[in-house]
Amino acid sequence: MTIADTQSLLAENQRLKVLLEVGQAISSLMELDDLLLLIARETARVLKADRCTLFLLDEKREELWSKVAMGEEKIRLPKESGIAGLVVTTGETLIIDDPYSNPHFNPEIDKKTGYHTRSLLCGPMRDSKGEVLGVFQVLNKLDGGFQQEDKELLEAVAAFSAIAIENARLYAELKKTFYSFIETLAATIDARHHLTAGHSHRVAKYTVGIAREMGLPKKEIEILRVAAFLHDYGKIGIPDSILAKPGKLTEEEYAQMKRHPALTKEILGKIYLSDDYRGIPGLASTHHERLDGSGYPFGLKDGKIPLGGRIMAVADVFDAITSKRDYREGMPYPEALEQLREDVGKHFDPEVFDAFERYLRKELADKTDEKKKPS
Amino acid sequence: MTIADTQSLLAENQRLKVLLEVGQAISSLMELDDLLLLIARETARVLKADRCTLFLLDEKREELWSKVAMGEEKIRLPKESGIAGLVVTTGETLIIDDPYSNPHFNPEIDKKTGYHTRSLLCGPMRDSKGEVLGVFQVLNKLDGGFQQEDKELLEAVAAFSAIAIENARLYAELKKTFYSFIETLAATIDARHHLTAGHSHRVAKYTVGIAREMGLPKKEIEILRVAAFLHDYGKIGIPDSILAKPGKLTEEEYAQMKRHPALTKEILGKIYLSDDYRGIPGLASTHHERLDGSGYPFGLKDGKIPLGGRIMAVADVFDAITSKRDYREGMPYPEALEQLREDVGKHFDPEVFDAFERYLRKELADKTDEKKKPS
Repeated sequence: MTIADTQSLLAENQRLKVLLEVGQAISSLMELDDLLLLIARETARVLKADRCTLFLLDEKREELWSKVAMGEEKIRLPKESGIAGLVVTTGETLIIDDPYSNPHFNPEIDKKTGYHTRSLLCGPMRDSKGEVLGVFQVLNKLDGGFQQEDKELLEAVAAFSAIAIENARLYAELKKTFYSFIETLAATIDARHHLTAGHSHRVAKYTVGIAREMGLPKKEIEILRVAAFLHDYGKIGIPDSILAKPGKLTEEEYAQMKRHPALTKEILGKIYLSDDYRGIPGLASTHHERLDGSGYPFGLKDGKIPLGGRIMAVADVFDAITSKRDYREGMPYPEALEQLREDVGKHFDPEVFDAFERYLRKELADKTDEKKKPS
Repeated sequence: MTIADTQSLLAENQRLKVLLEVGQAISSLMELDDLLLLIARETARVLKADRCTLFLLDEKREELWSKVAMGEEKIRLPKESGIAGLVVTTGETLIIDDPYSNPHFNPEIDKKTGYHTRSLLCGPMRDSKGEVLGVFQVLNKLDGGFQQEDKELLEAVAAFSAIAIENARLYAELKKTFYSFIETLAATIDARHHLTAGHSHRVAKYTVGIAREMGLPKKEIEILRVAAFLHDYGKIGIPDSILAKPGKLTEEEYAQMKRHPALTKEILGKIYLSDDYRGIPGLASTHHERLDGSGYPFGLKDGKIPLGGRIMAVADVFDAITSKRDYREGMPYPEALEQLREDVGKHFDPEVFDAFERYLRKELADKTDEKKKPS
């Protein structure tokens, strides 16, 4: 064996080890956005290239798109355009040393972004059935041009990437179903009476708006959104005769009606939720608590009420008084806000109210017609 | 570089390539049971060993368990027992050439299974936080004993396995949530009236029983089970005054009541379902169709009614007449079966009815008390 052979064997050994590492890193992500970012970054690193763009194929729209093109904006291309399009069509991996002299190369993107493509490695990513799922476009080898071994390395990275992307998509499908179930549960409640249609949606919208104004972390906002969607689910246990009664409730009827937040907790508590979401039933049940302890079902005071409960309280009352009822019109937004303001410190948390006021001002500024409700 | 060095380098490259292959295979499965089976099989193959058992750690029960122990029954062990227990405690990978002389080795399993353990390689599987998730136990190297390189190979396989198992568990969690939502939707309907409590559950149970008797594929049975659970969901749109009316309905009320299968389709149709499940809303809406075309909402005839619909029809009517109502007791099973038999060919599909009769006979044989309802 020559020294050159040994060196190439050692180099292959090194590449295989890097590949194993990358394979593990890629396999460990299930969130599609994070995954696409990681794949692009790792591919550029492993191939010692300046950047990598991973295009996914959208067969319906006959386009290639990239959500996370490193250092660039989101891109959509007709699926047969440029070098990437050529790879989709032929299924072959291409090394192009002098892109500007290649008739398939589209210099427009360079022009737009001010980037200069010197060398290019472009290969398909195939799913488990062998169908092309997307295209890797690796730009500007840092040291010299792309070689045969880079091609092989890219093909191996692509194999791991395809598996991870298919898993992430499966996971994303199930998550989409999860949210759609939540919407169905919310719609079920709202459907009991035509005048409450859309209430859960709007309360969720206001709740998220306030939470964002207050700078809550993304994960907490997601949980709060679900809780807000489902806050009234316990109403499923309240008879139509009370729920849809035109006009005011008698004292006894009101007592029955007041059972609904506790019922929300009881019914939602039977849903199997992963650790992250397990607090939702309890949280959802606190939307009728009041800062001064006069609320229900628990009569919690001030900081004992979870922040999410204090936020939903504002969102819920605001939507209730601005929506039409059988016996009255909906109150205009500015008037409703003033009515809420009177109860700040007693019913509502001052910081939450301030955040809602800021949110609403922005919302209204975004509408041409001030009276139009956010939908 | 000596010839021996070159050979060992070549051998290492070979091992790395096998590892990449195994890593990809393992990463491509999301169903936990299939995954555990594949990991055990691939590990034995890669390590040129006779068998491999993958134990998972159950921290709550302080046990190691293996669902898929190759060639053995399901096993549960106290988490500190035997060589596997030692690996959990120390976190070290062990090679044991002569197990019977090792004080930690438990020869009981060999005794029970008639297997003879000659050599043993046992190592931990760690999750992304470095916590021990389980233990690989590889038995009887086919050719000589286990070497240092087998140890390294096992550690690499374990790393891929841990990632795949964590992904599969995440997926399983979300699936569990999915089914629990379905149960919540079903319970929501049943909760509208105390006398229909459990109806959706029982119809799903009978439906699955019939489908199994008829030898339907697993996937179809799963879909049918969901459809059966949700078949009455449209009742959410029927007023309490009709739904919970004691005694018979007027003609007009009955006409309203008959809207519920179409409503089931409409409401469930709004849930985002993955391709596999997309037929559920339509299927669920066919449980009141009759073979002679006199059913509703579509008046479908014979084979035009999906098999699932014909199955649910039998399950639904049987549960309705055997359950107590305000105005009558539930009918005993044998009598109910005879009443259904009169409508075979008109309302019910003969093959479905036969399958139900077989299912029910087995069910009743399983109960000590004949009158006790399956729960």
